[in-house]
Amino acid sequence: MAARKTKAQSRAEARAGEAAPLDLSALTAIVGYPLRRAQLAVFEDFNHRFAALELSPAQYSALVIIGANPGRKQSEIAGALGIQRPNFVAMMDELERRGLAERLRTPTDRRSRALALTAAGAALVTRARRVQAEQEEEVERLIGREGREQLLAALARLAELGT
Amino acid sequence: MAARKTKAQSRAEARAGEAAPLDLSALTAIVGYPLRRAQLAVFEDFNHRFAALELSPAQYSALVIIGANPGRKQSEIAGALGIQRPNFVAMMDELERRGLAERLRTPTDRRSRALALTAAGAALVTRARRVQAEQEEEVERLIGREGREQLLAALARLAELGT
Repeated sequence: MAARKTKAQSRAEARAGEAAPLDLSALTAIVGYPLRRAQLAVFEDFNHRFAALELSPAQYSALVIIGANPGRKQSEIAGALGIQRPNFVAMMDELERRGLAERLRTPTDRRSRALALTAAGAALVTRARRVQAEQEEEVERLIGREGREQLLAALARLAELGT
Repeated sequence: MAARKTKAQSRAEARAGEAAPLDLSALTAIVGYPLRRAQLAVFEDFNHRFAALELSPAQYSALVIIGANPGRKQSEIAGALGIQRPNFVAMMDELERRGLAERLRTPTDRRSRALALTAAGAALVTRARRVQAEQEEEVERLIGREGREQLLAALARLAELGT
């Protein structure tokens, strides 16, 4: 005997349908999907932690690498970070405007500029690295110290994919 | 005795300066940077492999998950994949236009639509999963079978960061 469903029954079925978890196994079993989800989670967490310092992941990378390699050319820093030149130039404009980094004339090549942190930039990098260390501690809490080391090694190998 | 440098000496020094590798250790030692570099490499490799099928990583994810979960709502699929609703609607428009997926009326809820693959969509997913399997083999070649399993587990944990 076919009974017509009540509205309440239909709503209950709809809720049950919504609650049933989706089968994502075809994606969680391939590297690209969890890699992207993890990267988004880590960057979102980074943005949360760095909101007070007003630093994006790319800006943090640039400041840290300029600090560790003072006097190197804009094109070298951009190339090492894998940032397109126009994007890097725009980022340097912003960092210079904020008084964190500067472009200096080079003695050997009049056309290129050497990058360096200002004193304010160096002070910000020191603060930022302490904030970053807190994220690394949280990562270690999630996957362990050894797990974190293995992850870094695996990611470095994966970055060679297709090259 | 201070000798003035010749142009050739200056050029040689400039070249030597360019050749000297940058110190990136402050970035390679934190998870976010190699994670992003690896994700970009894997997606670039994906785009190369999938150019003939004209599928982006997001389109591949959507088709595979619709195929594994036929009849589920648009909002559920978008939510599970972490894709913003307007972006997902635009992607479904495109997949529907290409005859790969369709939005069907649901018996229980007149306002929502259930998603399903068309026959052409199901055939494309079968081909695409074979292409994807080749990328996974390449990943295994780089980091080993066990390394790949450990990586998937670590990435799944990392995706919980900040939640």
